[in-house]
Amino acid sequence: MLNPHYVVGFVDGEGCFSITLNRNSGRLPEVRLIFEIELREDDLPILEKIQEVLDCGKIYRLEYARYERWSPHVKLKVSNFEDISKKMIPFFTKYPLQAKKALQFEKFCLVAEMIGRKEHLTEKGVKRIRKIKA
Amino acid sequence: MLNPHYVVGFVDGEGCFSITLNRNSGRLPEVRLIFEIELREDDLPILEKIQEVLDCGKIYRLEYARYERWSPHVKLKVSNFEDISKKMIPFFTKYPLQAKKALQFEKFCLVAEMIGRKEHLTEKGVKRIRKIKA
Repeated sequence: MLNPHYVVGFVDGEGCFSITLNRNSGRLPEVRLIFEIELREDDLPILEKIQEVLDCGKIYRLEYARYERWSPHVKLKVSNFEDISKKMIPFFTKYPLQAKKALQFEKFCLVAEMIGRKEHLTEKGVKRIRKIKA
Repeated sequence: MLNPHYVVGFVDGEGCFSITLNRNSGRLPEVRLIFEIELREDDLPILEKIQEVLDCGKIYRLEYARYERWSPHVKLKVSNFEDISKKMIPFFTKYPLQAKKALQFEKFCLVAEMIGRKEHLTEKGVKRIRKIKA
């Protein structure tokens, strides 16, 4: 199993914590938290080892048909809120990010707390999330 | 000080171990080993922390005047052979790379051994280095 500090170093370079607001047919946008690492396909083994340490996420194979010069990529994606709040956040709280990605993660955690309190389902909450994101 | 495993994880994602053969006025090309990490300028603090752990290398600020849409980058570069053989290689031997960069590093070490034996100054040696690199 990979050393957890190794995973933090890798994620600080290659990971992405994002807050998305998707317009839908409802009154309020759907707020989602997504953690992703995207690598070239030949780096799949390391992605699988990171998935093992984080104990969550799914791996997708991406084909960029529109960008022929790109080699195929693979992506580890965690978007399930339970996994994010019970696994990802505790992991990166125990083993903190060290680069500027720490700020991205801090915002991610703030929004996770709000989602936990269902504040993302209110207009006021969504407004605050937009502010955090910006 | 950063955890060494963190540094390995970061380097596995963002580092580059390269073997260069520069044509010069002499009969044989000049063989050099270069380790680099290039990041956006606002990630300078993490580069300085990695430099501290590796205990070598210089940091350069890169301005891509020709690529106006790029933000300035910073680069940590180790190209001094003493630093590479006495600091870099022992470090990544103690804390091994885990992704496909491990193969890049293996070739880097092979060439370092050859340079240590001055084999890079012979035609046969250069031929072998080209083979390792390819």
